[in-house]
Amino acid sequence: MQRIFLITTGGTIEKVYSEQRGVVENRAAKLERYMRMLRLPDADIHTIHLMNKDSLEMTDADRAEVRDCVAKLLPEGAPVVISHGTDTMVETGLFLEAALPGLKVPVILTGAMTPLGFEGSDALQNLTESLLAARLLSAGVYVVMHGQVFPVGQVRKDKDKATFVWK
Amino acid sequence: MQRIFLITTGGTIEKVYSEQRGVVENRAAKLERYMRMLRLPDADIHTIHLMNKDSLEMTDADRAEVRDCVAKLLPEGAPVVISHGTDTMVETGLFLEAALPGLKVPVILTGAMTPLGFEGSDALQNLTESLLAARLLSAGVYVVMHGQVFPVGQVRKDKDKATFVWK
Amino acid sequence: MQRIFLITTGGTIEKVYSEQRGVVENRAAKLERYMRMLRLPDADIHTIHLMNKDSLEMTDADRAEVRDCVAKLLPEGAPVVISHGTDTMVETGLFLEAALPGLKVPVILTGAMTPLGFEGSDALQNLTESLLAARLLSAGVYVVMHGQVFPVGQVRKDKDKATFVWK
Amino acid sequence: MQRIFLITTGGTIEKVYSEQRGVVENRAAKLERYMRMLRLPDADIHTIHLMNKDSLEMTDADRAEVRDCVAKLLPEGAPVVISHGTDTMVETGLFLEAALPGLKVPVILTGAMTPLGFEGSDALQNLTESLLAARLLSAGVYVVMHGQVFPVGQVRKDKDKATFVWK
Repeated sequence: MQRIFLITTGGTIEKVYSEQRGVVENRAAKLERYMRMLRLPDADIHTIHLMNKDSLEMTDADRAEVRDCVAKLLPEGAPVVISHGTDTMVETGLFLEAALPGLKVPVILTGAMTPLGFEGSDALQNLTESLLAARLLSAGVYVVMHGQVFPVGQVRKDKDKATFVWK
Repeated sequence: MQRIFLITTGGTIEKVYSEQRGVVENRAAKLERYMRMLRLPDADIHTIHLMNKDSLEMTDADRAEVRDCVAKLLPEGAPVVISHGTDTMVETGLFLEAALPGLKVPVILTGAMTPLGFEGSDALQNLTESLLAARLLSAGVYVVMHGQVFPVGQVRKDKDKATFVWK
Repeated sequence: MQRIFLITTGGTIEKVYSEQRGVVENRAAKLERYMRMLRLPDADIHTIHLMNKDSLEMTDADRAEVRDCVAKLLPEGAPVVISHGTDTMVETGLFLEAALPGLKVPVILTGAMTPLGFEGSDALQNLTESLLAARLLSAGVYVVMHGQVFPVGQVRKDKDKATFVWK
Repeated sequence: MQRIFLITTGGTIEKVYSEQRGVVENRAAKLERYMRMLRLPDADIHTIHLMNKDSLEMTDADRAEVRDCVAKLLPEGAPVVISHGTDTMVETGLFLEAALPGLKVPVILTGAMTPLGFEGSDALQNLTESLLAARLLSAGVYVVMHGQVFPVGQVRKDKDKATFVWK
């Protein structure tokens, strides 16, 4: 069994449509419901719902909380996947890379351009890729999205193309 | 072959998620793409994309346009289904009922609480029901949603329950 | 609340794919799981899992069982929808029509060409249509499929077109 | 751009449901239709529809054809993903490993327990994983399924568990 930690922080990937308000919003964690669509017989996934925020609203205090959460898990020696809004995903990744020197496992940030369960969503693809990358990558902080693997220092979001590209 | 007219006016049913802006919005007509998921071998459906508006933004001029569109189709003697935002669906229906006396076909308003293609959407169900009701109902103006058939004078939206109920 | 009885008998609509055997087969009732995808706030649906058979294997004894089940429900005065394999759906319908004279409610047979949950399935459409038709049709035995409503004496399956047509 | 070759050979992953015959069968290639659901902006995927066979019916001549196809692509220096029936996937993989010494790219076999587009299918997950693994794995022949990566010499299908396990 391969243990993998999955920390959820919100972002587009977990947004839901509110019938009362007619908007998409971060409300309750929905990631686990979709995780059940994946077959991972050899993975022992521990999910931690840390927060549920649009990443544009993430503060320094929120990032410190993510860092503390990861730091506490590192002694377990298992890879960490973090679902995160795309707008500040790189910022959080760079912060983690600076704050957690000497990493011995991969820490992977992922997310989605369109929420889980919406037509054309890339969310389940990105989750699938991140969980596989967690087994294959060496230590370091990465962004995994759209079939691509980027060390966090070499990536930027391309808003017009709605994806991530080499910096 | 049963001819049915389908007029689209926008509303939640046709909303799409914008990856650039992170909101749901009425942009391009998407209803026909989903209509292809239905098997209607004996129906000859003529779709008219009249407008694509959130129904809260519908003006008197917009309603007059809907009325004129329906009035022009009536001589064909075929039932009319109108997809419409739920917030002012009843208002438009009452306006049509008053403006089009002596109807000889059913005119059916339908829509959705959650857009076509979003998880848990009721849109395809409501479309399916409306197209069947178009064959079975007598002349008059109706709201068809959630397995229910209401003459437009006897229905109101129940926002808390996210459905329509008898008035 | 509109009470509707839903009797399931098997057929393609409820077939599942067996990963061990690589075939589709009638095993456990799966219709209720998909019914939860429909919003029917004003319907009180009583589901009876009578049998789960490929309709080509239905015997006279099976049809007698369906008849007895319907006969027992009729005094309740509520419409009855029967999910059934398409190959002998008309045969069962004609048998019920002959066996149950003086019907006071609609008895609707429906099914699917492709099982619930398989790509391109017509199953949820047919169920949606049948449940709405149950509210709108007068007494009699009908086949409801693909946006069409047929009195059972006037319909036949067209295998090449994979639908039902007027006889 | 990362070039990846994708050879399709049939198997459960590409089976379709025949409405006329009521069975699942290998007929036309359907994999590319589902590939369009994935976002792979940095991948240049060349798909080769080599055959469409249930893997239980694969002959030595078929395996030689797969080998010849891979051998012809190897000089391009790009990873190769092969979609294949699960029953003889390991057999084909071992054959390729013996026939293609000195590999300089990963050759990845994948498939599915339930066809693409059927409820609960693992097919898109396995494809997603294989395309990511194609970028990350070193040279060799592998089976990639269900979040797992196996060198082909160390894997067997576990039919009861409907997955692959270490040998």
